[in-house]
Amino acid sequence: MASYTPPTKDMQFILHDVLDVSGSDIPGYAELDADFTSAVLDEAGKLASEVLAPLNSVGDTEGCSLENGVVRTPTGFKAAFDQIREGGWTALDLPEEYGGQNMPAILGTAVGEMFSASNQAFTMYHGLTHGAASAILAHGTDDQKTRYLPNMASCEWTGTMNLTEPHCGTDLGLMRTKADPQDDGSYKISGQKIFISSGEHDMAENIIHLVLAKIPGGPEGIKGVSLFIVPKFLVKDDGSLGDRNGMTCSKIEEKMGIHGNATCVMDYDDATGWLLGEEHKGMRAMFTMMNEARLGVGMQGLAQAEAAYQNAVEYAKDRLQGRDVTGDQNPDGPADPLIVHPDIRRALLDQKSFVEGARAFLLWGAFLFDRSHRTGDEDAEGLVSLMTPVIKGFLTDQGFDMTILAQQIYGGHGYIEDSGMSQYARDARITMIYEGANGVQALDLVGRKLAQSGGKYIMAFFEEVKTFLKENSENETLKADFLDPLKDASKHLQAAGMYFMQNGVKNPNAALSGSYDFMHLFGHVCLGLMWARSANAAAEALDKGAADTDFYNTKLITGRYYMKRRLPATAMHLARIESGADPVMSLDADQF
Amino acid sequence: MASYTPPTKDMQFILHDVLDVSGSDIPGYAELDADFTSAVLDEAGKLASEVLAPLNSVGDTEGCSLENGVVRTPTGFKAAFDQIREGGWTALDLPEEYGGQNMPAILGTAVGEMFSASNQAFTMYHGLTHGAASAILAHGTDDQKTRYLPNMASCEWTGTMNLTEPHCGTDLGLMRTKADPQDDGSYKISGQKIFISSGEHDMAENIIHLVLAKIPGGPEGIKGVSLFIVPKFLVKDDGSLGDRNGMTCSKIEEKMGIHGNATCVMDYDDATGWLLGEEHKGMRAMFTMMNEARLGVGMQGLAQAEAAYQNAVEYAKDRLQGRDVTGDQNPDGPADPLIVHPDIRRALLDQKSFVEGARAFLLWGAFLFDRSHRTGDEDAEGLVSLMTPVIKGFLTDQGFDMTILAQQIYGGHGYIEDSGMSQYARDARITMIYEGANGVQALDLVGRKLAQSGGKYIMAFFEEVKTFLKENSENETLKADFLDPLKDASKHLQAAGMYFMQNGVKNPNAALSGSYDFMHLFGHVCLGLMWARSANAAAEALDKGAADTDFYNTKLITGRYYMKRRLPATAMHLARIESGADPVMSLDADQF
Repeated sequence: MASYTPPTKDMQFILHDVLDVSGSDIPGYAELDADFTSAVLDEAGKLASEVLAPLNSVGDTEGCSLENGVVRTPTGFKAAFDQIREGGWTALDLPEEYGGQNMPAILGTAVGEMFSASNQAFTMYHGLTHGAASAILAHGTDDQKTRYLPNMASCEWTGTMNLTEPHCGTDLGLMRTKADPQDDGSYKISGQKIFISSGEHDMAENIIHLVLAKIPGGPEGIKGVSLFIVPKFLVKDDGSLGDRNGMTCSKIEEKMGIHGNATCVMDYDDATGWLLGEEHKGMRAMFTMMNEARLGVGMQGLAQAEAAYQNAVEYAKDRLQGRDVTGDQNPDGPADPLIVHPDIRRALLDQKSFVEGARAFLLWGAFLFDRSHRTGDEDAEGLVSLMTPVIKGFLTDQGFDMTILAQQIYGGHGYIEDSGMSQYARDARITMIYEGANGVQALDLVGRKLAQSGGKYIMAFFEEVKTFLKENSENETLKADFLDPLKDASKHLQAAGMYFMQNGVKNPNAALSGSYDFMHLFGHVCLGLMWARSANAAAEALDKGAADTDFYNTKLITGRYYMKRRLPATAMHLARIESGADPVMSLDADQF
Repeated sequence: MASYTPPTKDMQFILHDVLDVSGSDIPGYAELDADFTSAVLDEAGKLASEVLAPLNSVGDTEGCSLENGVVRTPTGFKAAFDQIREGGWTALDLPEEYGGQNMPAILGTAVGEMFSASNQAFTMYHGLTHGAASAILAHGTDDQKTRYLPNMASCEWTGTMNLTEPHCGTDLGLMRTKADPQDDGSYKISGQKIFISSGEHDMAENIIHLVLAKIPGGPEGIKGVSLFIVPKFLVKDDGSLGDRNGMTCSKIEEKMGIHGNATCVMDYDDATGWLLGEEHKGMRAMFTMMNEARLGVGMQGLAQAEAAYQNAVEYAKDRLQGRDVTGDQNPDGPADPLIVHPDIRRALLDQKSFVEGARAFLLWGAFLFDRSHRTGDEDAEGLVSLMTPVIKGFLTDQGFDMTILAQQIYGGHGYIEDSGMSQYARDARITMIYEGANGVQALDLVGRKLAQSGGKYIMAFFEEVKTFLKENSENETLKADFLDPLKDASKHLQAAGMYFMQNGVKNPNAALSGSYDFMHLFGHVCLGLMWARSANAAAEALDKGAADTDFYNTKLITGRYYMKRRLPATAMHLARIESGADPVMSLDADQF
């Protein structure tokens, strides 16, 4: 049976040693001193490890069931949901006026990782509610905010996002769901939406669906899409619940994983909805939710990798199999533990160096998100917007790969469902798909974000790297192991960007053929930068005589592994990119 | 619902255009002319696509059940098994004297790919029987051969291999199962074996278990392990079935995939067994089976990738989503098919170029296997023995990755079990684990095979590459696209071998830390070589005025993709290898 230990110390290291959050001038950050974040993380960690983690396999095994439109969640989910709700965990970073605690997103992200790692399917119920609440917060009228947000903040009511239809997922311009305007200002929504996570369940008294639909007579395609608030039970002016609205869950899907979360087919039949934001500007409003959700999904990828890694390490220490080639390490036992073997260590260090680097990257993203939201800093917004597809795409691709590596450590026992290692892989698999499949992330990155504002934000990223390298150019501890590899990797990223600039204008396919590799190349450079920063922080702590030398030395060794063993992937991605469009585009469709 | 189309034409291309099998002097190969192999492959393909493929999702959904020691296989499996059996498909390459057809293994391998691709869980029942029969053929007494082989060849009786115990998988020296010698020359076998594929089922009247066990008083560890034939029903001298033997299936495992195959816990309690081969030489006898099984598992990896790829291509052609950035390709439709998008093509070409290159590699392996078995050529045996861990490890790692890429093309629909794409990934996942987890393959390759006979066989491999490059050095069609990349990749492999030689003696961990990367580096060079050969064959066919120019041009384009986009991975693997033991070995176990 898999278990989960909150990585509080590693989180504290990033928050305080690397990012020095309480020293930042972002409003709200001064409160984030080490004692405070430690107290919050400890409490969240307790819930994650003691309440949510034990329900993870229950959710996987039982799954959800649908009978007469009613979805039953797995045993124990409702009690745990009440506990999360009562602890105020569902609205950490929502405004106080709606019942939230107004904490920075960076803290919500760290807490979110723990919840996701311990039980992804469960955490989606309130995670998506948070996303829907954010969209209402950003685009809703005062009445809408007052009507919906307090109960969504507390998760008395949960939220969903309804985009996909059977014939369209990525290409939402094809959507058929209609919204007919009514005299009272409301709309009648009709159509079918699929893949609606938490679309129906038994843990909240109301569900606030955000639904994309087209108002007849509006512009064709994506420009004619509007966003609507469509509650399961209409909400009266006094806040009490009124009539049941015209939607039903007609099916829940059998999926590869996240069985504990109900993935619903939702049929809307003259359901009453209210416009959220402006007519035909639905995509803009939805993207508030999507961008937040994409960072959240990147976090899930890392979270599953962390949980899987923890179990793989324990197994590698416990399982006795074979002998160290350089001499017995457990001479009194029948064999040495797996962890003596170089190839087991290779697999564990791939995971460890990814997870810790990815966490630093994600929290840096959340830091920029806070700076953008709390100070209106457009540069921070531009940079986090550029990195959002990388956080989503790279962290979930790699996160999934890491769950596979962790499962592999178990040998045959990992393939057996009892071990829980299969579930990590099956659950992590969805993160590469939902909130925009990773190919779409790569397209967003290379086709849109890269050239935004004349390439200003990618230049800002290179500036971050350059500044770090310059500031530490005299640092002999870092030079060979961290600075040189980072410089090389960053050059590969620059060369790739240059290739796109020189070739992408006359042939967009020359850039798009390399989009996926660019996303990974960028991701590696980001993790390389985060490891260089982490190593720097660790070295400084050691210089200052930190008591826990073992912890900081481990950071240096793990970081060096990333730089030496993982970062060389950048040259490969560049080579692929520079091979251009021709190898990719030369086959006719019927030659495949 | 997923479907399967036999890739007969691609197989014919490799057999005849690339390997020119009927022109080979290997006994039995002269009969393998294009008409003959085409007829066999067509028949096998019909069974695969029409009988086995439709049962693939049935097996996944129903799984096997155990009641009172009796395992029930999924609906339809028994009828299909009878059909496979009656067609003589279970003993294509077994000797005629035992009811086989004595065909070369290369043809059995091509047929095996089709069966595996259409239904891996089903095909394991007769695939493992074949392996067990091979071990009896190689090590059995005349009496044992006569007693067991005819019914195993026809799969009236099926076979298993029993290695793993709860506390030992890779390290079989720890095994506890005992074999007590009896006065009549038999042994009493007692102990528990786990992960026994096809250990119990309802499709055959007898099951011949090959069981590893220790004879008390024998040498410690792996040197005291012997192999035994332990039939479910004892076989009388007249060939009829006697008493039920002392073993029961006490549990079948819940697994991530291959649900249609019963993975059994087998409890042996004073079961009667007979020594196969010599006392304490069980591992040698078992390796006959293991080596064959490892080639077979490599084949499964490729097979699942092929099947998944086929469905991904169809989906990419059918599914309308988004527009070609260079101009609408389907102006009358609501959107263009997915396959217009460069990143979809990238994902499809990763799969296509892998599958076709891997198939050539596998069949080349089978070719060498035949040469070794049918002519006693020790060089061929040495080379295929060297490449066996690469075929197993590389083809299954990559094959699994390709099923994930194929699933990804479907977006959310791929995560839903209905599409069948999840099953390909879940089934393929086991191939990285069973018959020796891939890390063990890498260890076998670098720790044993590489230095065997003074490195003679890796030198022979380089000679193959060198000869090909030399013979084609004037070929301008191949030079830039195939020969140069192959030369570079081969140099990386040589450099890696050199690094091991220079560093591995004084520090074995310097070699073992790079073993996994070496396996992948080697695999890429092998596929590069096979693509160069395939391109050469295609170019020659075009020169000779072959009618099907489209087919041959597609080979050239697909091969070029591999060389340009996949082969650059070799430099990355070399960089990882050359980073040595230090990054891998520096952490203490408790620092993980």
